[in-house]
Amino acid sequence: MCKKSRHHVVIVGGGFGGLEVAKRLRKVDVSVTLVDRHNYHLFQPLLYQVATGGLSPANIATPLRSILRKNRNCEVLMAHVTDFDVEGKRLILSDGELRYDTLVVAAGSTHSYFGHDEWARYAPGLKTIGDAADIRRRIYTAFEAAERETDAELRKAFLTFVVVGGGPTGVELAGALSEIARHTLKNDFRRIDPTEARIMLVEAEQHILAHYPDDLCRRAADKVRSLGIEVHTNTKVTNVDDEHVYLQTNEESVVVATRTVLWGAGVRANPLGKKLAVACGVQTDRGGRVPVGETLQIDRHPDVFVVGDMAICLNSNGKPLPGLASVAVQQGGYVAKAIASLQQNSSISEPFVYRDKGTMATIGRAAAVAQIGGRQFVGLFAWLLWLFVHLMLIVQFQNRVLILIQWAWNYLTFNRSNRIILGEQPVLVPEVPSSTTATDSGKIDDSPSAS
Amino acid sequence: MCKKSRHHVVIVGGGFGGLEVAKRLRKVDVSVTLVDRHNYHLFQPLLYQVATGGLSPANIATPLRSILRKNRNCEVLMAHVTDFDVEGKRLILSDGELRYDTLVVAAGSTHSYFGHDEWARYAPGLKTIGDAADIRRRIYTAFEAAERETDAELRKAFLTFVVVGGGPTGVELAGALSEIARHTLKNDFRRIDPTEARIMLVEAEQHILAHYPDDLCRRAADKVRSLGIEVHTNTKVTNVDDEHVYLQTNEESVVVATRTVLWGAGVRANPLGKKLAVACGVQTDRGGRVPVGETLQIDRHPDVFVVGDMAICLNSNGKPLPGLASVAVQQGGYVAKAIASLQQNSSISEPFVYRDKGTMATIGRAAAVAQIGGRQFVGLFAWLLWLFVHLMLIVQFQNRVLILIQWAWNYLTFNRSNRIILGEQPVLVPEVPSSTTATDSGKIDDSPSAS
Repeated sequence: MCKKSRHHVVIVGGGFGGLEVAKRLRKVDVSVTLVDRHNYHLFQPLLYQVATGGLSPANIATPLRSILRKNRNCEVLMAHVTDFDVEGKRLILSDGELRYDTLVVAAGSTHSYFGHDEWARYAPGLKTIGDAADIRRRIYTAFEAAERETDAELRKAFLTFVVVGGGPTGVELAGALSEIARHTLKNDFRRIDPTEARIMLVEAEQHILAHYPDDLCRRAADKVRSLGIEVHTNTKVTNVDDEHVYLQTNEESVVVATRTVLWGAGVRANPLGKKLAVACGVQTDRGGRVPVGETLQIDRHPDVFVVGDMAICLNSNGKPLPGLASVAVQQGGYVAKAIASLQQNSSISEPFVYRDKGTMATIGRAAAVAQIGGRQFVGLFAWLLWLFVHLMLIVQFQNRVLILIQWAWNYLTFNRSNRIILGEQPVLVPEVPSSTTATDSGKIDDSPSAS
Repeated sequence: MCKKSRHHVVIVGGGFGGLEVAKRLRKVDVSVTLVDRHNYHLFQPLLYQVATGGLSPANIATPLRSILRKNRNCEVLMAHVTDFDVEGKRLILSDGELRYDTLVVAAGSTHSYFGHDEWARYAPGLKTIGDAADIRRRIYTAFEAAERETDAELRKAFLTFVVVGGGPTGVELAGALSEIARHTLKNDFRRIDPTEARIMLVEAEQHILAHYPDDLCRRAADKVRSLGIEVHTNTKVTNVDDEHVYLQTNEESVVVATRTVLWGAGVRANPLGKKLAVACGVQTDRGGRVPVGETLQIDRHPDVFVVGDMAICLNSNGKPLPGLASVAVQQGGYVAKAIASLQQNSSISEPFVYRDKGTMATIGRAAAVAQIGGRQFVGLFAWLLWLFVHLMLIVQFQNRVLILIQWAWNYLTFNRSNRIILGEQPVLVPEVPSSTTATDSGKIDDSPSAS
């Protein structure tokens, strides 16, 4: 269907990495096909805002076709990739196939429950808009259920929120939960006091935001606690069911009664990574990521590039690069250049080098941590920095403006306009596994809206 | 659970009618419970904008709790009403019951397929946010499928959109479809030309917008045709399946190959109307609406009021009032007053009289029809009037601003920012009937996203 006389570059995944490749190939004499199962690019760093009702899905999702409208050499194909035939240079789709000359795989990552995928139904992770909608429904439904519950113990369980994982996602979710409970819903209920909600942030390691320098994550932890969030470090999750989460510290094991457990702990590469590795005869790491050389090509398969969360790419000091948007974007730009130079003089001049422009994570209302170069920031300034950087990053101009207004409004009023529960339609209650996390999610038997 | 010493008013439905009653009872010495299966009030006049990607659900849906936050005498209960026990003064819920002293039923309306509910799966109507999401997914998925389709006939079918019903909803949907095809998606595809999409508006009566004066709806029809929409009046739908719609005119019967049929034809009262009528021993009309007296009470049941689309209420010249938001709002205000005066002097002074402030319908980009008093308007001015009135009507300030900006942007750029397809998650593919229209909807077998 997509045979071309021109060199055909096929990109799998319209995330930060894949989209960057497609954009940068605009003026290169190749034909490009970007394949994604969705018709939109998702700005994942703000997904937690959708999950907590601060933003609408459309604020952070932009149709790939409109982003690539001016890339006349680029086609967008909405399809499901099922496998790779690297010998035959074919991409296998659920409803066809696609021939390529050069393949770029950037299918990103999904959740890891460390071998306990059965937890997914009780503790949804946050990777897709479906996940965000599910989490939003669970959060606000829990408050509705608590308002109706007459049994004190059960009411307490409905008002207990456990966030697993002290990384950026977990901290963002916990921070937003605290704002919802302490401000947004403050005066909305008649029988319960939302400010009494218990929010627990559980982290197996010694620190939250562990990839930041020690004193920075210590200050971050203080900031998190100041929002009324219980920080439980050195605490492992041993089990999750529909009414409890089971915690294990060095000393003791605790059972917490809760109806809302959110999973921000583990990440692993998209299952396509495994298939690609098998097809190319290489080994993935424990996270299912595909090893690539310093030119981001797979060993002995120079026509296959891997970028973003799916790739194991070692930086100068031999450590694998983190799964950050900035890494994916830089890798995407590099691969586009590499493909261009391969077209011209059939060689790639220099290896990929990641330039760390700093990392930041938001904690909550006017609070974030940031590390730029050697410098560290905590609090309002870091948050403004975070806000500015992320707004500038968002793909489409309109969304920037809308988000800015929405946030300004939320900030001034503590309001969250997007806290509508769409669970009444099966809409947000997937019955069949659509991703690792969607498995039968949204089954809160006691929730009034689930009836 | 809700027993009170104070007189307890229970309102079923948080639409225009029910919400107005709750708001207006704020200073009356009664306790109020508003029951709705959703946690939000939906601004239905703009629902077609969500269905066509112009707005996000949260732009037109506002949490009932935040609207009624300051109504300290009002509780919001998210629950499903299943039946009425008017003798025992009890509301039967799917998971409990609720005692009342005065009952106000305002559960609105749903679609009518004129005895062909099996069409619902192929021709979704537009009443809920779930419907809107489903329709949006179908529209944009059809273009995606057409882009991938190699067979010319099938491609034509994917690019054929049939809107059934020439009322306001049908005209709005057809107008928005024309804008999507002729402007929004103009340059987004490589293999198809979206502007070649065929948009058919089918109406069984002699005119579209038939409840407007003849020359006004003739001018409206011209305006609709000028948008490239085929207007088929005097045309009945005899059957709908997953690949065709069957049309019957006086002369001939035609089979149209299409994958997208949208239903804007029939309306009937919420099924609760039937149950209420049975409980009160009265007869509903063909539309399932409940007859009420000039005080909006049910005959022989002065403690039961019915407002909005669910009620048959005759106006001064003996005609039943139309199912308009303005009617529901005025009736809601009247009932609140009536309840207050019954509390004070146990009598209702005067009957309900509807004050017609005019009606308007939007056709498309900068085009609408309006009738205010005796005066009639078509075109830009009517559209600006429509825009102004509707923005002013929307419940929450923030949404007004956001919508204004979003529309201004869409207007300037022909862009629709909300055209993301969420079908990949089962999210928008309800498997079980959640409403008359949700039955197994979203099954476009050939759509790439449905795979």
